[in-house]
Amino acid sequence: MMDRTIMAKTATDRRKTRTRPGVEGETAAGIEASRTSGLEPVLQRRVIVEGVHPEVDGGRFPIKRTVGEEVIVGADIFADGHDTLAAALLYRKRGEPEWLEVPMEPLGNDRWQARFRIEELTPYEYTIESWVNRFGSWRHELSKKFGAGQDLKSELLEGAALVREALLRAPEAADDDHRVLSETAASLADEALGQPERVAAALAVAVESAMARFVDRSLATRYARELQVTVERERARFGAWYEMFPRSSGSNPDRSGTFKDAEERLPYIASMGFEVLYLPPVHPIGRAFRKGRNNTLDPGPDDVGSPWAIGSDAGGHDAVEPGLGTIEEFDSFVKAAKRWRLEIALDLAYQASPDHPYVNEHPAWFKQRPDGTIKYAENPPKKYQDIYPINFESADWPALWTELKRVIEFWIAHGVKIFRVDNPHTKSFRFWEWALADIKRQHPDTIFLSEAFTRPKMMRYLAKSGFSQSYTYFTWRNAKDELMEYFTELTRTDVREYMRPNLFANTPDILHEYLQHGGRPAFQVRLILAATLGASYGIYSGYELCENVPVRPGSEEYLDSEKYQIRLRDYDDPASLSELIGRINAIRREHPALQRDRGLRFHQTDNPHIICYSKRSEDGSDLILVIVNLDAHHMQHGFIQLPLGDWGLSAGASIEVLDLISTERYYWRGEWNYVRLDPQARVGHILHVQVPGLPPQEDSPLPLRG
Amino acid sequence: MMDRTIMAKTATDRRKTRTRPGVEGETAAGIEASRTSGLEPVLQRRVIVEGVHPEVDGGRFPIKRTVGEEVIVGADIFADGHDTLAAALLYRKRGEPEWLEVPMEPLGNDRWQARFRIEELTPYEYTIESWVNRFGSWRHELSKKFGAGQDLKSELLEGAALVREALLRAPEAADDDHRVLSETAASLADEALGQPERVAAALAVAVESAMARFVDRSLATRYARELQVTVERERARFGAWYEMFPRSSGSNPDRSGTFKDAEERLPYIASMGFEVLYLPPVHPIGRAFRKGRNNTLDPGPDDVGSPWAIGSDAGGHDAVEPGLGTIEEFDSFVKAAKRWRLEIALDLAYQASPDHPYVNEHPAWFKQRPDGTIKYAENPPKKYQDIYPINFESADWPALWTELKRVIEFWIAHGVKIFRVDNPHTKSFRFWEWALADIKRQHPDTIFLSEAFTRPKMMRYLAKSGFSQSYTYFTWRNAKDELMEYFTELTRTDVREYMRPNLFANTPDILHEYLQHGGRPAFQVRLILAATLGASYGIYSGYELCENVPVRPGSEEYLDSEKYQIRLRDYDDPASLSELIGRINAIRREHPALQRDRGLRFHQTDNPHIICYSKRSEDGSDLILVIVNLDAHHMQHGFIQLPLGDWGLSAGASIEVLDLISTERYYWRGEWNYVRLDPQARVGHILHVQVPGLPPQEDSPLPLRG
Repeated sequence: MMDRTIMAKTATDRRKTRTRPGVEGETAAGIEASRTSGLEPVLQRRVIVEGVHPEVDGGRFPIKRTVGEEVIVGADIFADGHDTLAAALLYRKRGEPEWLEVPMEPLGNDRWQARFRIEELTPYEYTIESWVNRFGSWRHELSKKFGAGQDLKSELLEGAALVREALLRAPEAADDDHRVLSETAASLADEALGQPERVAAALAVAVESAMARFVDRSLATRYARELQVTVERERARFGAWYEMFPRSSGSNPDRSGTFKDAEERLPYIASMGFEVLYLPPVHPIGRAFRKGRNNTLDPGPDDVGSPWAIGSDAGGHDAVEPGLGTIEEFDSFVKAAKRWRLEIALDLAYQASPDHPYVNEHPAWFKQRPDGTIKYAENPPKKYQDIYPINFESADWPALWTELKRVIEFWIAHGVKIFRVDNPHTKSFRFWEWALADIKRQHPDTIFLSEAFTRPKMMRYLAKSGFSQSYTYFTWRNAKDELMEYFTELTRTDVREYMRPNLFANTPDILHEYLQHGGRPAFQVRLILAATLGASYGIYSGYELCENVPVRPGSEEYLDSEKYQIRLRDYDDPASLSELIGRINAIRREHPALQRDRGLRFHQTDNPHIICYSKRSEDGSDLILVIVNLDAHHMQHGFIQLPLGDWGLSAGASIEVLDLISTERYYWRGEWNYVRLDPQARVGHILHVQVPGLPPQEDSPLPLRG
Repeated sequence: MMDRTIMAKTATDRRKTRTRPGVEGETAAGIEASRTSGLEPVLQRRVIVEGVHPEVDGGRFPIKRTVGEEVIVGADIFADGHDTLAAALLYRKRGEPEWLEVPMEPLGNDRWQARFRIEELTPYEYTIESWVNRFGSWRHELSKKFGAGQDLKSELLEGAALVREALLRAPEAADDDHRVLSETAASLADEALGQPERVAAALAVAVESAMARFVDRSLATRYARELQVTVERERARFGAWYEMFPRSSGSNPDRSGTFKDAEERLPYIASMGFEVLYLPPVHPIGRAFRKGRNNTLDPGPDDVGSPWAIGSDAGGHDAVEPGLGTIEEFDSFVKAAKRWRLEIALDLAYQASPDHPYVNEHPAWFKQRPDGTIKYAENPPKKYQDIYPINFESADWPALWTELKRVIEFWIAHGVKIFRVDNPHTKSFRFWEWALADIKRQHPDTIFLSEAFTRPKMMRYLAKSGFSQSYTYFTWRNAKDELMEYFTELTRTDVREYMRPNLFANTPDILHEYLQHGGRPAFQVRLILAATLGASYGIYSGYELCENVPVRPGSEEYLDSEKYQIRLRDYDDPASLSELIGRINAIRREHPALQRDRGLRFHQTDNPHIICYSKRSEDGSDLILVIVNLDAHHMQHGFIQLPLGDWGLSAGASIEVLDLISTERYYWRGEWNYVRLDPQARVGHILHVQVPGLPPQEDSPLPLRG
């Protein structure tokens, strides 16, 4: 093992290493070649590097980070025998010829670790190299023998030889290190000196670093894989989303609001502190088989239809619905939003109404029935005659896929960098992997949110394939145990390396029964949970007004759903949660702990309705504690357990916490503290905890089950 | 999802698939190429195959099985949308051009599984292929629509087209399947028939299997890796070992026993039912710096020295110590042992006494000191002047490694197929991977036991590198919790795929204090634990006589250790455990449950001194329950909990168990049953449990920590 103090000293150093040709690293292929064809030099690489983390599916997929975030890399590193080892984390921006290098530190049990920070919006890669530190081994043995009072004549001559070998690798035009080594070699070999003087020369700190600089790494083991990091901007990790139908932003319930009307709503939305404003599809809406109000099959002539029935004679995915305005008005809306510090996210729904231009121009892009007509969407026995699914397996698929990608590029050219993708799991996974990689190469600042409410492995696969964020099961996780289990999976297992949750408290499709029956407190509870469990979260408009009437009992669909009609609302209702939302979004902006998900930890409470968790910022200094009463109907009280040990405090320590919503202060002592939460008064606390000198947060992953 | 009943029907079928050229499978490289160079056909492979298990370090290392064992392969398999999928496990003996194929069954949650059995002593490989079952999807939708009473005119024509496409892939010279499909295509398209008749034609069972036979797999996804199976013979998995120093088998304490004397001991060893007889090194012992009795530095002229100080003027690693006899006498001993159904295992200790022929002939194979002398072994400040370690990094390493491998081949030529390797972790890991692979290619029936008592990751790496079996920490795991935790790691996590424990209850180096202080009951406890927790286990001679005196208090070394002197023993001592050992080894031979480790499960007891576990055979029919009182000093009693639910029994079920040692029968009722174990009377039970119709044992792995 290396001396931990010495390693720590240099842990922040970086230096450049040109990739050395001929270093093949520890590849299975190399070993296999040696096995079958004889004794290849690769067999002389003694160090084993394995168990590298993070690594998604053996390097098949990249990990994800945002600019400014750290990557903490660990590995199992060991060699036969008892030699001292050294190891370096190598990283670079993809495409650079040289690696940057950080020394790794041993953590015990053959685990080593180092970290680097993402500094630019470009893909990174990393790997590990490790080697036997012969001089370190020699020094280690020397000091043990010296301590035992042994005669070290032979040892000192060995050391002199090691130092002279290093000098041969040092540049000729000598610098300080060169001088140090020359003097050390002389002292070690100088039999006129006393043994203690010669040993002291060997153990000098300056010798260690000079020897490390000129160490022989020709037999170092390079880890077989160069692991990839997809880098995105901060908004991929952190942001509050607001969803709204622009056609509902007018003042006449019988006429579509326009982009111009929607501009008028921007100050209101900005006042609540949102960062992203997400619009359902803004494209021309088909007429054929148009759905009426409440999803009926007999629409009136003025019914506006579903924005997801995309395409009419006014155009398809690269056009705007005439009722909303022109493309120039859309551009103006995007610019206006930007002035309010709101970024527009568009819906990317790859499907067509029977009136879509594709249908005539590219019938091969759809599935045909034997009679030559196009197959509409079905979920037998249900039929969706207003929707033609796109056939990603079309014989003409290269043209189709290229066109679908062009649609994204079209909207990027109109200032849109965030896309919420509708049902990506019913489209080819390969399409997403191909298209998103290509788009991100040209536009690394694009962000894609996967709206896949499907089976867990498919959701995770989409995340691995390139989506920046994912909708989750959050809406259906309302009990304490469910929330703890699910968010432990999302934030503590390897899933966190590639899947970033975006927690919507409601959507136009999902009005959970918890909200239907819990009244205003239920909306407060789910708002606080979404905004503090998730660095990214969202609400769909109407949430702030606690709209909670389903189309029928047992349904999660809204009554008079905005999917099929225009809805005007009184956003000035004094019962609105807009002020609370604004307060919470402000807290989120002020507290880095709430801007990432890795720092989440759940804590014990003695009441099954009271959930308690904390979040820490990456540097550990910002600490937020959240306590929520999940019972929207009744007062609940009980004790919560603070993880004082993890915070570096004694079991009897006193701490002061500040409620960031109410601005009240509480003084707590010891691990277990009492809380009382009456939903009519307040459903929970978002507390800022100040603990001077917090130790770093433990970050190693938990296993993922199933 | 496939119809589970249909899949089950064909699950035992096998058929051959020639590797189809052009099927590249789901490789990261393929996707990467598509990403950068355009729309490659690989992007049309819709099915995802991932999370394949078993797979060691992303396929870097093989899994291990013995002839006759099953490999159960699982994978996450899914595709976009809602199509029906099919999947096959592909396996073959390495080198065969064709894959054998077993249909995989869906287990739910996108997990699929199939199994194959190892039939020959040769390496195997396996992978997975999965494809969209278009006909299955069509049938599934057809039956749903039919149930809803819909008009199916268009659907039936689609089905007819699918069947006609399959016919094009069927061989011309029509067989039954061809006929079935022709008739089906005709019926489906026959508008003169009623809809129910046409639907019935589509849903016929014979159509499903015929369509499966001629399915289009050109867009199937082949898993990227061909995973390897190291296959060994049964003894690698199951065997009782006895260790003895042949020089102690004579009758004169002052003269070395010989191989001839050792032949006389064979009936005794065979009577105890051992399968393997392991001998410490039998090579010439060096004179230089020879150790005296009890590891003293001043040996007398008659002191015999340590067998691990290998090499003298009588020869090195390919010679026998003259005191033991000649190589012909060794051969005779090996043959005699075979007649007693005992297989000889030799010690492979790559190190030299200063008198070893290598020292003069190949000084470059050792490390030199600056004065030109050879470096002896050290663990500073300790010095081992009687041992020269071999330098695997020697400049002449190819010749050295080749010679070391030749030593193994020499002993194989003398009938030895089992090697216990001394301290492999102080020799190059690459050497083992290279040498063991090469030896096993020539001699697949060789078995190598790794004697590495070192850090966990190094022990596991040696197992991955090719060792058949491994010594473990068993000797130091004496408390109930320690045993449960350690053996859960060894038998329930992925470690079981590559590391086979061999549990020695004692060794010439390890007399644990539990044995020093626990008297005869302690030896009985550890014997039962070793023989039932481990399919492979061993004792070092003297164990049966309960030898328990350390060289000094606090040491694990034996007094008058046989490592440095001859020890004659009275094996006829009436207090010997030889009869119990014989009984237990007979039970092991009769019960397949005890011949493997995967079937181990621990059960609850309410007494911290009473441990309870069961083992199941692979087919599940043999069930052994072991209950041991770990307190060698006091009677312990309490309740043990039978896993009646796992055994398919109700909580109140009655069972009969037979004590295989005492032949007593017990009748138990319900989950919790009382046991009382007085170490003076009996330390534990080995019970045979008969449960008719036991359900299969759950086999999915637990995560490995650290």
